[in-house]
Amino acid sequence: MSDRLSAQIAFLKEADQLKSVLRASRLLDDSRRENSAEHSWHIMLYALVLADQAGPDVSIDRVLRMLLIHDLVEIDAGDAPIHGEVDHAAMAAKEAAAAERLFGLLPADQGAAFRALWDEFEAAETPDAVFAKCIDRLQTPIANLANGGGTWTQFGVSMPDLDLRVGRPIGRGAPGIWAWLRPQLTAFFERAAKG
Amino acid sequence: MSDRLSAQIAFLKEADQLKSVLRASRLLDDSRRENSAEHSWHIMLYALVLADQAGPDVSIDRVLRMLLIHDLVEIDAGDAPIHGEVDHAAMAAKEAAAAERLFGLLPADQGAAFRALWDEFEAAETPDAVFAKCIDRLQTPIANLANGGGTWTQFGVSMPDLDLRVGRPIGRGAPGIWAWLRPQLTAFFERAAKG
Ligand SMILES: [Ca+2]
Repeated sequence: MSDRLSAQIAFLKEADQLKSVLRASRLLDDSRRENSAEHSWHIMLYALVLADQAGPDVSIDRVLRMLLIHDLVEIDAGDAPIHGEVDHAAMAAKEAAAAERLFGLLPADQGAAFRALWDEFEAAETPDAVFAKCIDRLQTPIANLANGGGTWTQFGVSMPDLDLRVGRPIGRGAPGIWAWLRPQLTAFFERAAKG
Repeated sequence: MSDRLSAQIAFLKEADQLKSVLRASRLLDDSRRENSAEHSWHIMLYALVLADQAGPDVSIDRVLRMLLIHDLVEIDAGDAPIHGEVDHAAMAAKEAAAAERLFGLLPADQGAAFRALWDEFEAAETPDAVFAKCIDRLQTPIANLANGGGTWTQFGVSMPDLDLRVGRPIGRGAPGIWAWLRPQLTAFFERAAKG
């Protein structure tokens, strides 16, 4: 029992490093870049608050667990910005190795359960994973709308890019949210085009 | 529906500010102070990993929801360090006003549900709340052990202080964790006394 607890605490201490993984996106007040730990907290709050936008076959509690652990692999693999240039195959290999090492710190039964949950999120096929992915994509557009473009300006993103990279996953998990959000994005890009 | 979503997103944007509320405690690598949003994420991971230390009447999913929202009031009320000098009545009043304002941003039904969950956490009486409080107390001692004393040194904390402020809530929610942790704390303070 004591060995089990020591392994669990070693994992939890290792997880502290997620607070030092910086994302491309910034806080709403534009004071600094956001880290992946606080981002994970924030999208869990998104998932809980927006639970009524999920389909009837979604378990919000499983979604919360997925979002809680979904970014841990970034401790080893770093964050791949959605609008940046990324070698997706290389990134997937790095993330799989990270999952192996990090979840491997846990007692074997628990490590396997966490790994299965992370694999499910990555595969984006089950209703829970589809909603979790939708929520994961939602926070950055909300932040960018609020602070004048944010990472869109930085990466030269256009509305067709957003339809593909953001609209598809959000629309798949929560069509009601995309129907609400898209006109705001369109209006933003129209204003931006006029300078 | 669109009004409901707009209110929910307004709440989620307001919540971004929790990332700028600084706690007394520091990251494990001692690089900077921790903020309350990333702290909330980390203790949710603690709760999920250490779920097997909770009593059989504890719902970990409800605990996760409690921990997700438990610190939001700090956006208005600030963080009260556990070992600092705090006027507890004044702090409770500030936090209640913060809960009123912040959960009041949500649609009424949802605001009431969040408020009830936060009240339950604060009252620390139900099995879920007792375990949530236990987990909330656990992360800082683990961090302080790892980085040479941390907030204990800063606030001149002794082992009797810890038995009261940390041992009581942790022992109440998870006696197995306290039995594992206490000898490590005692050893730390004995070493520290010898200089
Ligand atoms: Ca707390």
